[in-house]
Amino acid sequence: MSVTSPKGFRAAGIAAGIKSSGNLDLALVVNDGPDATAAGVFTANRVQAAPVLWSRQVLKGGVLKAVVLNSGGANACTGPAGFQDTHATAEHVAAVLRGPGVKRMLLGAGEVAVCSTGLIGERLPMPKLLTGVEHAARALAKDGGPAAATAIMTTDSVAKNTVVTGEGWSVGGMAKGAGMLSPALATMLVVLTTDAVAGSSLLDTVLREACRVTFDRLDSDGAMSTNDTVLLLASGASGVEPTEQELTAAVTAACHDLAQQLMADAEGATKHVAIEVVGAASEADAVEVGRSVARNNLVKTALFGNDPNWGRILAAVGTTGAAFEADELDVAINGVWICRNGAAAEDRSKVDLSGEQVAITIALNAGDAAATVWTNDLSHAYVHENSAYSS
Amino acid sequence: MSVTSPKGFRAAGIAAGIKSSGNLDLALVVNDGPDATAAGVFTANRVQAAPVLWSRQVLKGGVLKAVVLNSGGANACTGPAGFQDTHATAEHVAAVLRGPGVKRMLLGAGEVAVCSTGLIGERLPMPKLLTGVEHAARALAKDGGPAAATAIMTTDSVAKNTVVTGEGWSVGGMAKGAGMLSPALATMLVVLTTDAVAGSSLLDTVLREACRVTFDRLDSDGAMSTNDTVLLLASGASGVEPTEQELTAAVTAACHDLAQQLMADAEGATKHVAIEVVGAASEADAVEVGRSVARNNLVKTALFGNDPNWGRILAAVGTTGAAFEADELDVAINGVWICRNGAAAEDRSKVDLSGEQVAITIALNAGDAAATVWTNDLSHAYVHENSAYSS
Repeated sequence: MSVTSPKGFRAAGIAAGIKSSGNLDLALVVNDGPDATAAGVFTANRVQAAPVLWSRQVLKGGVLKAVVLNSGGANACTGPAGFQDTHATAEHVAAVLRGPGVKRMLLGAGEVAVCSTGLIGERLPMPKLLTGVEHAARALAKDGGPAAATAIMTTDSVAKNTVVTGEGWSVGGMAKGAGMLSPALATMLVVLTTDAVAGSSLLDTVLREACRVTFDRLDSDGAMSTNDTVLLLASGASGVEPTEQELTAAVTAACHDLAQQLMADAEGATKHVAIEVVGAASEADAVEVGRSVARNNLVKTALFGNDPNWGRILAAVGTTGAAFEADELDVAINGVWICRNGAAAEDRSKVDLSGEQVAITIALNAGDAAATVWTNDLSHAYVHENSAYSS
Repeated sequence: MSVTSPKGFRAAGIAAGIKSSGNLDLALVVNDGPDATAAGVFTANRVQAAPVLWSRQVLKGGVLKAVVLNSGGANACTGPAGFQDTHATAEHVAAVLRGPGVKRMLLGAGEVAVCSTGLIGERLPMPKLLTGVEHAARALAKDGGPAAATAIMTTDSVAKNTVVTGEGWSVGGMAKGAGMLSPALATMLVVLTTDAVAGSSLLDTVLREACRVTFDRLDSDGAMSTNDTVLLLASGASGVEPTEQELTAAVTAACHDLAQQLMADAEGATKHVAIEVVGAASEADAVEVGRSVARNNLVKTALFGNDPNWGRILAAVGTTGAAFEADELDVAINGVWICRNGAAAEDRSKVDLSGEQVAITIALNAGDAAATVWTNDLSHAYVHENSAYSS
C-alpha cells in the first residue's frame, strides 16, 4: 500500500543528513517500465522553488524515469544557484542510476523530477544530498515505498500512503504536508504510481481532473506553497489498459484518500471540517463560497471554540461574487439548520460540536451545482506550531 | 477631541441595558446645523445588517440630522423583522427629538442613520433600546462626544476619539472595532463630524478618498463585517468653506488617526505591522500585494514568533496577480534587506523583532506606485478571544 504496490516501481528512503535530527530525509522512486509515461501538476504560486521550475520542464516531455525528493529544505527563493543545485541533483541521480553498483537504468537528467520541502530561502547541503542519492540508489527495493513516504515527512506526524486496485492493475501513492495543492501549511508533495498502460496525454487529463476535486479543495490555512507538486508515473507493467473513466476513478480515489490523510494530520487542527455548498448556480460558485468560509479566521476560531456561529459563516459567504440572495441563504452545522432565509432558525444549542468531524452545509438556493471544500479549525496549536518553528 | 469638538453637534452615551454587563451601550449624535449635509461608506459584504440597509438608503438623500448607535447586538441576519426594528428605532429617534422634553429638532426618520454592533443573528431587545433612545435624547450635550464613543465599544479596550483642526473649522470623530472597513474583527463603526460648510456631494468624494487610503488598508484578519459603517456629518456652523483639498486632508488625517487607534487595539495583537509595497506598476497592484501578505496566516504567526520569515512573505506575494518577476523581489523587515532578487541577502539575525512595531517593505521593482497596508500578528490571544466568546 505505497508507491511500490503497482508493478514496475522501486523506491528507497534514507537519512542523508539534511535534517539535523538524523531522520530519513531523502527518497528516490524509479520506474522500471516497460513504459515511462508521466504527468505533473504544480503550485499555482508565481514564486516557484527551483525543483518546481525544473520538474515542470521535465514533465513537458511526458517521460519520467525517476523522482528524487528531499525534506529538510525547500530550495525555494535561492536564486540561480539554487536552480543549479536542482539541476546537479537530477544529473547525479541519472548518473548514479546508470550504474555501476546498482541495477542499471537508461536515463538522462531530463527524465528525473526533483521535489524539495522544508525551510524557504536557504541553500541545500549539496555534498550530503549527492552522497545521499548514491545511498538511496543502492537501497532501491520493490518494497521501498513506505521508507520513501517516511523520508518526505516534515511536520507530518504519520507517513501517508495509499493504494487503489483495478482489475489486474493498481494505483499507489504517497504524500507529505499538512496542507494542500493551492494553499499549504508547509508544502504538499505527492507521488502517484500505476502499472496501467496509459499515454502521458491521458495521464495529464486524468491527474488534473483528480486534483481538481481533491487536493484543490483542501484549504487548511489559505496559504499557498512555493513547492507543491503532484506527480503521476505509469510503468505499463500490468499490461492492462484501463479506460479513461476507470483510470480517472482510481486516481481520484487515491488522491481523495491521500487528501483526507493530509487534512487529518493538518498542523494544530482539532476539527476536520467538510464545507458542502449546494444549490449553487455553478460549480465555480460553490467552490468560491466553500473556500471563502474555509479561509475565514473568525469561522475557524469559532469552530475551535465549539461555537456554531452561523453569522460568521454568512458574513464569509457575503464576501464572494457567487450568485445568491442574502435573505435566501440556509446553513446547517452537523445536520441542524440553524439558519434559514438568512436568519436564525433551529436552536443553536441543538448543534453538537463535541466531535472531531464537522459538517457545514450551505444552501445558496440559486441553482443545482454543488462542491465540497475541506478545512480545519484555527487552534492554539496552529499558532504555536507556526510561530515557534521556522518553516 | 471627539464628535462634539466641531461646532453644531451634541452627543450622548448611556446604558440602555442592551449589554448584560450594564456598560454604556447606546449613543446618539445630533447635528444642530445650520446645515445637515452628510455622506456614508458601508461594508462591501453582500450580507448586510438591517442598519446598513437602512442607513445606506438614508444617505442617498445626502441629509442626516441624527445617528443612533448601539453595541450589544449587530441586528444582522435577522430578516424582515430585524429591518422593522431598525426602522422603528429611526422613527422613535425622530419622534423623541421633535420633543417634548428635549431641545426640539425638525426631522423625520429618513434623516436618522442607525448603526449596530455585536453578535450576528439575534434580534435586539427593542423595549430597552427604545427607552434608551429617550434617555439618550435627554442626555444630549455639547460635551457628550466621549460618552458616545464609550457607548459603542464592544471588545475595544479603550474608546477612540480624534480631532483635526483647520483654520476656523475642525473635524471630529469616534470609532469602535478592532477591525476595518473591509475586513473586520468585529464591526467597525465610525462617525465623523465637521463644522465646515460642504455640500453632500463634496462630502461623499472626500469621505471615499479618505477611507480608501486609511480604513480600506487596515487588514487585521481578512474577515469582512456585515455592519461596517463610516459616516461624515457637516453642520456648517463654522461658516468656513474649506477647499476640497483642505477638507480631504483633514478628513483623511482624522481617519488615519482613528485607523491607527483601531489597529493598536486589535483583538489579541502583539505586533502592529505596516506593510509598505513600493515599486509597483500600479497602486492597485501595491494594495493587492500588501493585502495578500497581511492576510497570510503563516506570515502572521511567524511575526508573533519574532521570526523574520521572508520566504513566507515571498510565497504570499506569489499568490497575487501583480506585475513582478520572482527573481527581482526585494524584502526588508525593520530596515534590514534580508531578501534581494528573490533570494537571501542580509543576515536574518540582524532583524530586531523585539518591539511592537514591525515595518515590512516589499519592492516589486516593476514601476513607481506604492501603498501601505496595516495589519497585526496572529497570536494565541487572537485564537482565545475569537474562540471563547461568540461575537
